[in-house]
Amino acid sequence: MEKVAALCKRRGFIYAGSEIYGGVANTYDYGPMGAELLRNIRNLWWNNFVHGRDDVVGLDASLISSHKIWDASGHTAGFSDAMVDCKNCKGRYRADHVIEDHFAKKGTEQNVEGLTPEEFKKIMVDEKIKCAKCGKIDWTDVRKFNLLFPVHLGIVEGDQSLAYLRGETAQGIFVNFKNVVDSTRVKLPFGIAQLGKSFRNEITLGNSIFRTIEFEQGEIEYFFDPDKTNWEEIFNGFKDSMWDFAVNKLGVNADNLRWRVHSDDERSFYSKRTEDLEYNYPFGGFKELWGLAYRTDYDLNQHIKHSGKDLSILDTQTNKKVVPHVIEPAVGINRLMLMTLCDAYTEEGERSFLKLKPSLAPYRAAVFPLLANKPELVEKAREIYKTLQKDFRVAWDDRGNIGKRYASQDEIGTPYCITIDFDTLEKDQKVTIRFRDSAAQERIAIDQIKDYLIQNT
Amino acid sequence: MEKVAALCKRRGFIYAGSEIYGGVANTYDYGPMGAELLRNIRNLWWNNFVHGRDDVVGLDASLISSHKIWDASGHTAGFSDAMVDCKNCKGRYRADHVIEDHFAKKGTEQNVEGLTPEEFKKIMVDEKIKCAKCGKIDWTDVRKFNLLFPVHLGIVEGDQSLAYLRGETAQGIFVNFKNVVDSTRVKLPFGIAQLGKSFRNEITLGNSIFRTIEFEQGEIEYFFDPDKTNWEEIFNGFKDSMWDFAVNKLGVNADNLRWRVHSDDERSFYSKRTEDLEYNYPFGGFKELWGLAYRTDYDLNQHIKHSGKDLSILDTQTNKKVVPHVIEPAVGINRLMLMTLCDAYTEEGERSFLKLKPSLAPYRAAVFPLLANKPELVEKAREIYKTLQKDFRVAWDDRGNIGKRYASQDEIGTPYCITIDFDTLEKDQKVTIRFRDSAAQERIAIDQIKDYLIQNT
Repeated sequence: MEKVAALCKRRGFIYAGSEIYGGVANTYDYGPMGAELLRNIRNLWWNNFVHGRDDVVGLDASLISSHKIWDASGHTAGFSDAMVDCKNCKGRYRADHVIEDHFAKKGTEQNVEGLTPEEFKKIMVDEKIKCAKCGKIDWTDVRKFNLLFPVHLGIVEGDQSLAYLRGETAQGIFVNFKNVVDSTRVKLPFGIAQLGKSFRNEITLGNSIFRTIEFEQGEIEYFFDPDKTNWEEIFNGFKDSMWDFAVNKLGVNADNLRWRVHSDDERSFYSKRTEDLEYNYPFGGFKELWGLAYRTDYDLNQHIKHSGKDLSILDTQTNKKVVPHVIEPAVGINRLMLMTLCDAYTEEGERSFLKLKPSLAPYRAAVFPLLANKPELVEKAREIYKTLQKDFRVAWDDRGNIGKRYASQDEIGTPYCITIDFDTLEKDQKVTIRFRDSAAQERIAIDQIKDYLIQNT
Repeated sequence: MEKVAALCKRRGFIYAGSEIYGGVANTYDYGPMGAELLRNIRNLWWNNFVHGRDDVVGLDASLISSHKIWDASGHTAGFSDAMVDCKNCKGRYRADHVIEDHFAKKGTEQNVEGLTPEEFKKIMVDEKIKCAKCGKIDWTDVRKFNLLFPVHLGIVEGDQSLAYLRGETAQGIFVNFKNVVDSTRVKLPFGIAQLGKSFRNEITLGNSIFRTIEFEQGEIEYFFDPDKTNWEEIFNGFKDSMWDFAVNKLGVNADNLRWRVHSDDERSFYSKRTEDLEYNYPFGGFKELWGLAYRTDYDLNQHIKHSGKDLSILDTQTNKKVVPHVIEPAVGINRLMLMTLCDAYTEEGERSFLKLKPSLAPYRAAVFPLLANKPELVEKAREIYKTLQKDFRVAWDDRGNIGKRYASQDEIGTPYCITIDFDTLEKDQKVTIRFRDSAAQERIAIDQIKDYLIQNT
């Protein structure tokens, strides 16, 4: 993990947020390579789950939204971390972290999802867990702290309105359900998809971008009438697409993926079934990548109750009003990126490279003139570079020796390096194409390059 | 404008934010059509200003950032609206709005950019401007209120750290300048581009998405050594690209665009030249679309001073350290979208349609079986739909009569409607393609459709 993180910083994928001012914990800025990789993942997700389907439409809701939405969804009351203080040294911790660390040291695992403050406290007492700072056992009760960030709109003291930065993209979909039904031609079953930032004021463990206070979600709420559509079919359909996306679109090794079914205790009370697609991260093993939850009609009913609006949909066949049930696949785009980077990181002998799928790599190819001081080589190389640039994102490099250029493209995952040499001009109108993964080289005709890049994604 | 706004709501482009809970003023949610149009504009901007250039790289910085960044940039001290209260009725107003309204009623214009609170007050007194609510002239002094939204990170009372939602994307670029230089192979002159949300706690006039508390910016900071590069060349180069983008990429009527040079009073003290590309909006005439400012080395120097870090770049030719100067083109993506919608809105006789460029429209084409109850028509239409879907975003509609389907596609700007009828099957393997702008129809061979759509963007 340290190696991946170092490469990400060195090659412009991920920088610490506000770094020149000492940083803001758990915020990150994406550099030139990171911004491109993120874009590629985002676009792939949208193309796959919105454009690639007949039954899903997009939405892009505001990050700042009324506090009433979060009252209705239960977030202002229940969206919280369980915290505990050491009375002796005043250290403050997340109770789940304290317990997880304790069991990790014992070499066992303990599932802490969905526990109540009382249950956390009981485990801490039963296990005689000590404060990591002072070594004493003198804990306060475990208490919950809300994760939503409040935002005060307006400038008149006492007349400001309370809003929140959204804690998830899902609620923006539920509150717009009726708007989408009324303004488009969707009919059940159908999904509404959204990509965008969410925010949680939480204490995190600092595994790079695994858990950050600001993160990007890709969520779909898939609405259906449970009397007409079998929920298990939809659920399993999404399981297949999520797995397929991770393995075939992001190119991740299937051995590093697994499904985990949430236990009854862990699952939200309104959920009929929840499963996590987990990835085997280089820190701490299998962790949540992508959640899939059958949330029933809980959310829409909450908003019906709190807003007083009719959010049902008319079934034109039966003339019956339906409050649809919903199945939600929800993923963190940054987590997809972290998984992709970890899975792609490869060391072979002296070489380290990112084995990214060509369609994901920041640059699809790099173009080099063999020597920068030979105008005829540079000119031909520029010509090829400019032609390829119409269809692909292409890098240009004419500095240092070819070996160094290869090494630098390897580390940002560029799958093909194309070198223009004297043979290109004088002999064969071919270029040397060098493959990132094998480091092998081949001669290929200039007019074949584009087709080659199109076919190998 | 009311017509455009009504269409945007009715057809799923723009909804009021948090609507079912009475709304949050000046927040908006983008529906299925709006989300696609925004995506298309975003991608066009990125393709044009990042991928289309050799000298610009991307960045994607955190929305939440250290308060020190905003101290250094001058935003915590100076980024504010001038407000004034009526002592009689306690009404509170933005001073610039009060003055602009007053002069608008007189039928004249008054430039209020860059005025001090004292200058605002003087105009109000000189012009004997009355309170719009109570009609009295009894104003307080004009005072400034800061526009940044504070965010408190961490949950320990008294130990929280102050951060801000960014007020512009530009600062994320300046504070990462050194990171980008160190982790990529850029050399001066070069630009760093960023797309993303910014936030301003301001009182707005409510012209749809023209000015909102949360908005998306597309900014480039273009760095150069003023001893080596002529700033006017860069400046004029951007003027050309911005104009070209609006006219040729977004398809806007050039008569509705103009350049306006900022006066000496209006310009920031550190700026050598600022010009706005303005669009003639249906409310209030020409208003800012896209700013272009030569900001000198002000921002980098501020961050050097406040962070104590060396943000200069080494010129390898002269071995001289350079703090680059910067030229900044900055645009609101939502404002580009509003302009595009306003400019595309067309009424002809009974018809109203959005004359969007095909490359911008939420759907590139729609496919209809002439009759929904003829399986052979539906089957053929599905086949064509599925084939086109591989390359384009395509709509499917089999409901109601063809006229209604045309009308509904017209309103979301779908440029081509493709109908499969009995002749398709029995006679000619051709479809009827109907053009949004002329409402004319033509027969076209099935295997020509894809090429036709590719050629007409």
